[in-house]
Amino acid sequence: MSFQYLNPGPARAFKDRFTTKVDETKQWYEEGKSGKIGLLGLPYSKSSISASQASEAPQSIRRALGFYTTYSHEKEQDYTDVTMLDFGDAPAHPTDTEKTNDLLKKSVKEMLEEEACSRYVLLGGDHGVSFPSITAFHERWGRVGVLQWDAHHDVRNTEDGGRTNGTPFRSLLESGVVRGEDLVQIGIRDYSNAQAYAEYCARHGVAVYTMADVDAEGIASIVKKEIQRLKEKVDLIYLSVDMDVVDQAYAPGCPAIGPGGLTSRELLVSVQEASGDPIVKAMDIVEIDPSKDVRDMTSRLAAHVMMRYMYQ
Amino acid sequence: MSFQYLNPGPARAFKDRFTTKVDETKQWYEEGKSGKIGLLGLPYSKSSISASQASEAPQSIRRALGFYTTYSHEKEQDYTDVTMLDFGDAPAHPTDTEKTNDLLKKSVKEMLEEEACSRYVLLGGDHGVSFPSITAFHERWGRVGVLQWDAHHDVRNTEDGGRTNGTPFRSLLESGVVRGEDLVQIGIRDYSNAQAYAEYCARHGVAVYTMADVDAEGIASIVKKEIQRLKEKVDLIYLSVDMDVVDQAYAPGCPAIGPGGLTSRELLVSVQEASGDPIVKAMDIVEIDPSKDVRDMTSRLAAHVMMRYMYQ
Amino acid sequence: MSFQYLNPGPARAFKDRFTTKVDETKQWYEEGKSGKIGLLGLPYSKSSISASQASEAPQSIRRALGFYTTYSHEKEQDYTDVTMLDFGDAPAHPTDTEKTNDLLKKSVKEMLEEEACSRYVLLGGDHGVSFPSITAFHERWGRVGVLQWDAHHDVRNTEDGGRTNGTPFRSLLESGVVRGEDLVQIGIRDYSNAQAYAEYCARHGVAVYTMADVDAEGIASIVKKEIQRLKEKVDLIYLSVDMDVVDQAYAPGCPAIGPGGLTSRELLVSVQEASGDPIVKAMDIVEIDPSKDVRDMTSRLAAHVMMRYMYQ
Amino acid sequence: MSFQYLNPGPARAFKDRFTTKVDETKQWYEEGKSGKIGLLGLPYSKSSISASQASEAPQSIRRALGFYTTYSHEKEQDYTDVTMLDFGDAPAHPTDTEKTNDLLKKSVKEMLEEEACSRYVLLGGDHGVSFPSITAFHERWGRVGVLQWDAHHDVRNTEDGGRTNGTPFRSLLESGVVRGEDLVQIGIRDYSNAQAYAEYCARHGVAVYTMADVDAEGIASIVKKEIQRLKEKVDLIYLSVDMDVVDQAYAPGCPAIGPGGLTSRELLVSVQEASGDPIVKAMDIVEIDPSKDVRDMTSRLAAHVMMRYMYQ
Amino acid sequence: MSFQYLNPGPARAFKDRFTTKVDETKQWYEEGKSGKIGLLGLPYSKSSISASQASEAPQSIRRALGFYTTYSHEKEQDYTDVTMLDFGDAPAHPTDTEKTNDLLKKSVKEMLEEEACSRYVLLGGDHGVSFPSITAFHERWGRVGVLQWDAHHDVRNTEDGGRTNGTPFRSLLESGVVRGEDLVQIGIRDYSNAQAYAEYCARHGVAVYTMADVDAEGIASIVKKEIQRLKEKVDLIYLSVDMDVVDQAYAPGCPAIGPGGLTSRELLVSVQEASGDPIVKAMDIVEIDPSKDVRDMTSRLAAHVMMRYMYQ
Amino acid sequence: MSFQYLNPGPARAFKDRFTTKVDETKQWYEEGKSGKIGLLGLPYSKSSISASQASEAPQSIRRALGFYTTYSHEKEQDYTDVTMLDFGDAPAHPTDTEKTNDLLKKSVKEMLEEEACSRYVLLGGDHGVSFPSITAFHERWGRVGVLQWDAHHDVRNTEDGGRTNGTPFRSLLESGVVRGEDLVQIGIRDYSNAQAYAEYCARHGVAVYTMADVDAEGIASIVKKEIQRLKEKVDLIYLSVDMDVVDQAYAPGCPAIGPGGLTSRELLVSVQEASGDPIVKAMDIVEIDPSKDVRDMTSRLAAHVMMRYMYQ
Ligand SMILES: [Ca+2]
Ligand SMILES: [Ca+2]
Ligand SMILES: [Ca+2]
Ligand SMILES: [Ca+2]
Ligand SMILES: [Ca+2]
Ligand SMILES: [Ca+2]
Ligand SMILES: [Ca+2]
Ligand SMILES: [Ca+2]
Ligand SMILES: [Ca+2]
Ligand SMILES: [Ca+2]
Ligand SMILES: [Ca+2]
Ligand SMILES: [Ca+2]
Repeated sequence: MSFQYLNPGPARAFKDRFTTKVDETKQWYEEGKSGKIGLLGLPYSKSSISASQASEAPQSIRRALGFYTTYSHEKEQDYTDVTMLDFGDAPAHPTDTEKTNDLLKKSVKEMLEEEACSRYVLLGGDHGVSFPSITAFHERWGRVGVLQWDAHHDVRNTEDGGRTNGTPFRSLLESGVVRGEDLVQIGIRDYSNAQAYAEYCARHGVAVYTMADVDAEGIASIVKKEIQRLKEKVDLIYLSVDMDVVDQAYAPGCPAIGPGGLTSRELLVSVQEASGDPIVKAMDIVEIDPSKDVRDMTSRLAAHVMMRYMYQ
Repeated sequence: MSFQYLNPGPARAFKDRFTTKVDETKQWYEEGKSGKIGLLGLPYSKSSISASQASEAPQSIRRALGFYTTYSHEKEQDYTDVTMLDFGDAPAHPTDTEKTNDLLKKSVKEMLEEEACSRYVLLGGDHGVSFPSITAFHERWGRVGVLQWDAHHDVRNTEDGGRTNGTPFRSLLESGVVRGEDLVQIGIRDYSNAQAYAEYCARHGVAVYTMADVDAEGIASIVKKEIQRLKEKVDLIYLSVDMDVVDQAYAPGCPAIGPGGLTSRELLVSVQEASGDPIVKAMDIVEIDPSKDVRDMTSRLAAHVMMRYMYQ
Repeated sequence: MSFQYLNPGPARAFKDRFTTKVDETKQWYEEGKSGKIGLLGLPYSKSSISASQASEAPQSIRRALGFYTTYSHEKEQDYTDVTMLDFGDAPAHPTDTEKTNDLLKKSVKEMLEEEACSRYVLLGGDHGVSFPSITAFHERWGRVGVLQWDAHHDVRNTEDGGRTNGTPFRSLLESGVVRGEDLVQIGIRDYSNAQAYAEYCARHGVAVYTMADVDAEGIASIVKKEIQRLKEKVDLIYLSVDMDVVDQAYAPGCPAIGPGGLTSRELLVSVQEASGDPIVKAMDIVEIDPSKDVRDMTSRLAAHVMMRYMYQ
Repeated sequence: MSFQYLNPGPARAFKDRFTTKVDETKQWYEEGKSGKIGLLGLPYSKSSISASQASEAPQSIRRALGFYTTYSHEKEQDYTDVTMLDFGDAPAHPTDTEKTNDLLKKSVKEMLEEEACSRYVLLGGDHGVSFPSITAFHERWGRVGVLQWDAHHDVRNTEDGGRTNGTPFRSLLESGVVRGEDLVQIGIRDYSNAQAYAEYCARHGVAVYTMADVDAEGIASIVKKEIQRLKEKVDLIYLSVDMDVVDQAYAPGCPAIGPGGLTSRELLVSVQEASGDPIVKAMDIVEIDPSKDVRDMTSRLAAHVMMRYMYQ
Repeated sequence: MSFQYLNPGPARAFKDRFTTKVDETKQWYEEGKSGKIGLLGLPYSKSSISASQASEAPQSIRRALGFYTTYSHEKEQDYTDVTMLDFGDAPAHPTDTEKTNDLLKKSVKEMLEEEACSRYVLLGGDHGVSFPSITAFHERWGRVGVLQWDAHHDVRNTEDGGRTNGTPFRSLLESGVVRGEDLVQIGIRDYSNAQAYAEYCARHGVAVYTMADVDAEGIASIVKKEIQRLKEKVDLIYLSVDMDVVDQAYAPGCPAIGPGGLTSRELLVSVQEASGDPIVKAMDIVEIDPSKDVRDMTSRLAAHVMMRYMYQ
Repeated sequence: MSFQYLNPGPARAFKDRFTTKVDETKQWYEEGKSGKIGLLGLPYSKSSISASQASEAPQSIRRALGFYTTYSHEKEQDYTDVTMLDFGDAPAHPTDTEKTNDLLKKSVKEMLEEEACSRYVLLGGDHGVSFPSITAFHERWGRVGVLQWDAHHDVRNTEDGGRTNGTPFRSLLESGVVRGEDLVQIGIRDYSNAQAYAEYCARHGVAVYTMADVDAEGIASIVKKEIQRLKEKVDLIYLSVDMDVVDQAYAPGCPAIGPGGLTSRELLVSVQEASGDPIVKAMDIVEIDPSKDVRDMTSRLAAHVMMRYMYQ
């Protein structure tokens, strides 16, 4: 076989010899490989209260990585050396959420046990996946601090519907995986939550920043302050980015969209600020339903969130 | 209060005094009411193998009933007297399919125990709802014959994912609710099923009609023959209409669409033929995902399926 | 000025020197011009019972004429000589339907008074435009026979909402413009009309053909028979094509779509059959709402209806 | 009847026992009921110059109320006690705008005569509905001051098309219902209006704020100043919110969208500022066409406008 | 590394152990491998006269293979042994059609020179790709007979725009790659072609079947007759399936859609008939633009065309 | 002929006698006519690396001119006297980019040679059209300074794909048409370019402003400074506006969208600032693909860009 023109294998887009697309720095994990960033899909969204196809987001975000490059003009830095290892998608059970949560937790742990990477990105799925994912990090590495970008508290009671995408932080607090004082919620929005859950967060010592707080203090400054506070106490910090923290005009592909949220620039700046410290070991991106999106805008934004996190 | 113009309450569309829309013959069930047709929504689709929002179909089909009228010009008959009692939607558990199946079965039984109607329509949801629904009819009324319009056998093994929308007839056969000889499958399509399941059906004595059989024998003639055969043996006949039996051009709103299926006219004619006999006591309509549909075409077709079934 | 490359004026698509697009045979009317087919837009749809943008159809159908050519391979005939004169769009009043009906009627009459063409095409708009349009033909040329392709009778009472798109044939009958015996309705569909209006039609001697009749007799044969019957009595025949006579799979862009209608081939064959006789002097095409259409399919079908009518 | 699982009636979404959705505070009006906020739909958009389905907005905005809750984290206040009485939708005539305007005015007056609420929300429809609506308030309560959020003056002449959505404030000024000095227009945009109408407003003493003024003074400060000015003179203030004042990126569902408008945050802040004073008795929200919207974004924004207005 | 749950690599959908999806029978070609069917993408559509993204079809058709299975119930045959070797996508030049044609031809030839398969499927792209593709087969294997399913002749002159998707069969005839008597065109549609090109085909002895011929003779019978005629004369037969031969209701994703074409069943039956003879060595499927499609219907139909061709 | 109602010719929307829509100031060019602004479409996008229908933008932007008026309330100025001459669309070759570039250049030159206007607007097409267009201005008028709004450098090598939409400024620099020091790039975005091309720009003395620079200095101030610098050196300044410089929320209709770009207000303000000096003789607007847009938002923004440029 001596092909001069043909090159069998999955289709590749147009290649410019001087340009590195982000997905070109990504390889499927194989034993013995190591890299800077570990990537894992958590394609589960049957825990969503409303009908969601967020399970398709890992695929659409991976695709979006192919639209952008490794080069930051602003930092005059090319990050072709920030290699990604893709561990694929964790398995999920078609009809059993508890079983799925177990599968997700075990999958994350298996990835961590390979000790192949220094940082990880988990791609949801709905926000329900953060419960098993953070639990896995906790079990592996100890006390976890969490920065949660979200319009919602996500500490609903579990009696009214089991572990849904409205309960992950309740589950984490109740199970002792995360302490209230180690949880920071940024971007909480008016008319999108319940008093009982605001009080629950207050009772547990959760640090809550509303959109008014963001307007008043500035999001980068909030993040900086909280990272400093947490790093004194915890073994690692986990960023949990629910994309519905962003205004519906900038992130139309989330199930629970609304007006009055962050701009995409506010999100990007704050993730970049948070990611500067090496104690930040993991980030998840959740609540993108590609079937509801406009031109994959929200997955594109997620790709930029990843670049801000990875390229430090 | 003496309103001359205003008339508080849910919005009503334009009313022509001589025209009766089908939804005008429908009332919410209240104790003591009786009517010809009982209607119940089974809005559950988390048992679907692929992401589905078929849980929204009961709403869209009810809406579609408002687009059509009670009058058949061809039969020169106005069916304003075929009153419908709407029992609302059965509850579903957000994260537990087994619990949901139990809730659905008990809800159908509660409806039947009211003894308010002579015939019933169940609106799915995905095809997974037929297992609890048919079980309820069986427990109430005895031996059930089933006519299943479907491109697929739906007798998958349950080891690979629990009770999904691919398993209802397997569950019904294994649990003894339905005997193989009492099940008729119409519209089975090439390249859409597995040999193992074709053999499973054959082994259990299921009567299977492929699209080639439909072409050769004619769908009305198949239905007529099978209704005759079943009515000798069973206590009631249940029609289970998976809308993906219809060609994708006519029913674009099903998750598992494809070419080479029934035309909408073939479906309507065969449902009308089947519904002529009073032994037919129930019908479900499943696998419509309104979020995937084009102009609610598939829900509109479902409304016509209901009219053919109700207006005898 | 001597342009070698540039050619100022409205954009033209790619031109193949041997191919004539239908819109290339069309000219804007100017005094003294004559042609075979007169074309007039009647862009009004505020008389629609449900919200409609059928007022945009004249533009989309004109555009669709540019997708097709003048050559019939089946008849081995090139119709480049069937010239069209486009009289533009009739004016409509933004908020007054009665005033609009008057404007439309007067506009049609002004066109006819030019005596520039032997046949006319009127592009609605909703079906309400047929009342003023047919009235104009009647006032100009005498007794009018009408073949109406429609899922609906369109003889609603006018007390419940004035002259809407549900009343044109009621208005025509009541005003004496058309006699009941001179009106033929083809494609009337079950569960889409009211008994009172079926009886109204019967009382006035309207010839009504349901979809069952179409199935039984064949649509071309019905049309042939009725043209023969009418031509003995009337001065001209007017074809009124409500595109919702076609099944929703083939004409998704009508406001009142539903299953169980004509295929596009049945429509085309029957229009061709009807158009063979020179007593047919006019045709309108109504009830296409381009904002609801899929890829302009319904406007494309309308263009083919025009070709079948024009190219005899 | 003793239902344990089933609960007949219109479908309800998932219910969390600690969360109150805004639409749960809403009841259909019945004689003798009183509440804080009266709600009335004015579903008419046939007065629109361009084709509009804004008549469907009352339904979509009501639906959007079910997406949000009564709790403001920023104000640490739960507004479950702000009860809404829904008077349904006012009737409209299918083909007669003058008749419709009369029906709308009389309907609003009938609602006001019930004296059941202290504040009202009117949901259009296109902006044409503000003429009858404001007239009703004037006839009931006296001198009306109006704050109009709008990219356009809406004082077109009525000779060129009757009372359209381009004329309501012309009609109000000419009929003496509103004095020029009592009208404030905020958000007027360049290249979206005519000089003649700018001059007309100036001549009548209308206070006009362009987007440049908004940039220079700040929208909250403009609103505060004008509320103070008006309250000295008028009996009540009416807020008229044409959603096209918002930039197309934030409110894509308006017929007349364009770039360079308010952000959604600017709109929300200014409505909140305006609503603080009890002299503000009414608000309408107009020019949302749900058929043109993206994921109901504009109706969602309208729901938030309502919350800012109601929850003081 | 001992993963129990995780399984790194590209995401796999839900797997039922007894079901074989068609794409599971497909492998990327590697030296030394052999299989029954060779697959090659020809993702080029810049030769299209109108703007087309048919270059994306190879990806969407491959995806559609994952929706269907290898089992034919009608033939009681499971085709898991019909292995496919995927040679990937041939390279195309971004801005030079002549260079691209050369790249495509050479790529097809390289594939053929591997002698790894007995039959081939080529996935366009627009119809322009058939010129280099058929040329490659001719150069490798000799005299080629072609069955072309198409609404259009595709023998335009090349002076007016170079080698476009309107010229492939002109190029093949003029270059002597295909003789006129060896070309069969099926499904030619009225008002979609030019007289000059009909005459060109007649002059060259091309066998042309219009839709009227299809109606009169039956498509399977036409295909059978022509395969018999050709196989006496040629070394191999190549099927060229332009999906716009199908009616727009069944194949909405083609650039040049229109009414009055084949049903999907007519296409499938005729391809199956044609593929029965081993002299048929190749098939291309062209003119699907996934960006214009509805729910990938046209790609799904293409997948079924492939199954009919492969599973003999 | 004496039409009182009818007025044959292309359809006109509703006309308010006091309002001038921008497209009413536009005429098709004819010999001897002169006007302030010359308009030319360059409808070519086959040079795009990814599939693009930007060739349709000249039509959609022209349409958008009909949505807006000539009056600036902020400047209290009506620009009805700024007449536009429309030279139509330049011809493009269906399959040959080099030939097209030649046709485009010659067409622009022919327009300039008419000497009919003082300023020009060129409507792409993809960014590839700027190479022939700027070359034409250079050949006619001498040294050209260019302000390029763009997320990308567009100085890719031409070996990897010929002259694409990624290469125009490379071509201009290499051919000596534009000197590096005369090129200003504004809005360059992180993770959207390659290091090699950033260095290429630096080496050639191109003035590059990233989004961080825009944030830091303010876009109007950057533009002002660079216009001052350039006007000392060049004979004319050409503005080249690639709409993907704008954030995806504000300009969703560009092929290469992403988050973190300009707001529409930033673009409008900066174009207005740039256009104040009469040395600015030309502007192109490129990279709008109407088939990917949402409600023509991006074409609407383009129309406002034109108004800011024209109405000084
Ligand atoms: Ca969340
Ligand atoms: Ca959230
Ligand atoms: Ca099924
Ligand atoms: Ca099925
Ligand atoms: Ca009608
Ligand atoms: Ca009709
Ligand atoms: Ca307004
Ligand atoms: Ca407005
Ligand atoms: Ca072709
Ligand atoms: Ca073709
Ligand atoms: Ca560019
Ligand atoms: Ca760019």
